[in-house]
Amino acid sequence: MTLDQRAALAATLRHPRPTGPPPTIEQIRAGFRALMATMQVPGDIRTTPATLGNRPALLVEPAGDARGGTILYFHGGGFVSGSPTTALPVTANLVTRANVRAYSVDYRLAPEHPFPAGIEDTVAAYRELLDSGSDPATIVFAGDSAGGGLTITTCLAARDAGLPLPAGIVALSPGLDATRTGESMTTKAGIDPFFTREGLDRTGAMYLAGQDPHQPLLSPCRYADLTGFPPILLQTGTDEMLLDDATRLAARARDAGVDVILDVTAGVPHVFQAWAGSLSEADDALDRAALFITQRLRS
Amino acid sequence: MTLDQRAALAATLRHPRPTGPPPTIEQIRAGFRALMATMQVPGDIRTTPATLGNRPALLVEPAGDARGGTILYFHGGGFVSGSPTTALPVTANLVTRANVRAYSVDYRLAPEHPFPAGIEDTVAAYRELLDSGSDPATIVFAGDSAGGGLTITTCLAARDAGLPLPAGIVALSPGLDATRTGESMTTKAGIDPFFTREGLDRTGAMYLAGQDPHQPLLSPCRYADLTGFPPILLQTGTDEMLLDDATRLAARARDAGVDVILDVTAGVPHVFQAWAGSLSEADDALDRAALFITQRLRS
Repeated sequence: MTLDQRAALAATLRHPRPTGPPPTIEQIRAGFRALMATMQVPGDIRTTPATLGNRPALLVEPAGDARGGTILYFHGGGFVSGSPTTALPVTANLVTRANVRAYSVDYRLAPEHPFPAGIEDTVAAYRELLDSGSDPATIVFAGDSAGGGLTITTCLAARDAGLPLPAGIVALSPGLDATRTGESMTTKAGIDPFFTREGLDRTGAMYLAGQDPHQPLLSPCRYADLTGFPPILLQTGTDEMLLDDATRLAARARDAGVDVILDVTAGVPHVFQAWAGSLSEADDALDRAALFITQRLRS
Repeated sequence: MTLDQRAALAATLRHPRPTGPPPTIEQIRAGFRALMATMQVPGDIRTTPATLGNRPALLVEPAGDARGGTILYFHGGGFVSGSPTTALPVTANLVTRANVRAYSVDYRLAPEHPFPAGIEDTVAAYRELLDSGSDPATIVFAGDSAGGGLTITTCLAARDAGLPLPAGIVALSPGLDATRTGESMTTKAGIDPFFTREGLDRTGAMYLAGQDPHQPLLSPCRYADLTGFPPILLQTGTDEMLLDDATRLAARARDAGVDVILDVTAGVPHVFQAWAGSLSEADDALDRAALFITQRLRS
């Protein structure tokens, strides 16, 4: 990242983080929408509203002939905000670079619908894909931030429900520890332009709604048994408090005998891939993610 | 890896590991040559004997027009065996997949030439590339096993010598700890089909020749300051005693603010990339390495 790009990023991120009282849930959602609306969406895609697992979803397709297979995408937003629309810049970049369609799931959000509502929705979406005839070997889970966490927890919940597992998992800056115990929670606290401990605790409490965070579906990098998982690609930046969620999940996956790529870009923040088109690190990371996806879909 | 492939691998590897007295250095070298001669070399390359830094080298080029840039390749063999010829299966696969030429350095070996002779030769080779007009931004270091270690230590020694650093580093199953303290030295001891502690100690002693292994150029994953290093790709398998050399270097690189990809394939052994053409994990890993190289060479 150049200094100019860092400065522009810092200016962008300051906007939705007012001083004063904590933002309301409406302000959080509006701020996130506004931020993500500044990102570039590749032009060569088609989007179609859909439903999947009784929830709204967005089908995102390459303009031309796509390869077979499906990305099942889970957007970010801390489990309290975001939608397939806010995630479209990243989803569409994966779709065009891997030349494969994606279904992006509009799962239920807290505080109206705390844990485990969102995971119920993503599992239901996956189940409908399977029920409609998709071979699990042609499905890759992908997601960013909270949705990166959902790639892992949806796979856990699917396994617990007796479903076959997808062919691969792509998790961008995943949140994987609702207990917030990663070293980077403190070592990166002054560096991360997005998060503060207070902000994470506030949205985390909405999602938990008093439930115990010490369980695999909430803190998979500490408690999940990843045995039998498909290959996992984790991408993260060194300038984020969630860095060690990814590093710990990678170690856990290795110990469980799972293929895992821990792809760390220095000097970039949370979900830096959203800056594709204006940040070379983002474009390069998305190209690596697309290669991973295509390798999973043809094996 | 399929069970058939595992069985074939195990049969192959048993051959050069006789019971009875420890092998002589001549037997080690002949066994390694015989093993590597069984690997497939892509046909669409040209090889030309060369010299670089006053040592023999092998120029490996794509048959067609190559992109600009150079891979400076360092072969494996525990610092006591191997040559550009034994490494040719892996070198040529990187050359064809990234479509870029490589110089593979025939650095001096122990016990005739213990540490730091090999590193002196690889630095001299790099210096000659630079002196002949190559822009360091067009050079990527790559290597396997001991040569994977040399990718890191040559970069350290080059920095200490005041040379500019290359654009990237690709280290396949690197050996990065002459003190042999990784957890995987014990946890993978019964699993690794290549190495035993005794074998590593024997060849390690030839390379050390009584010198202290507690120094950055011998145990970089414990002692090296990686600040300012170019992006690093580490590929390793879970079935190898050197696994935690790579995981520890990755952590060290992250802490130093260096881009680093730790790419771990489960159920495969040391330098599994040599089985390209008959093992899909090898082909996939080499394609990921080639993408990394091309990303480094165009930035």
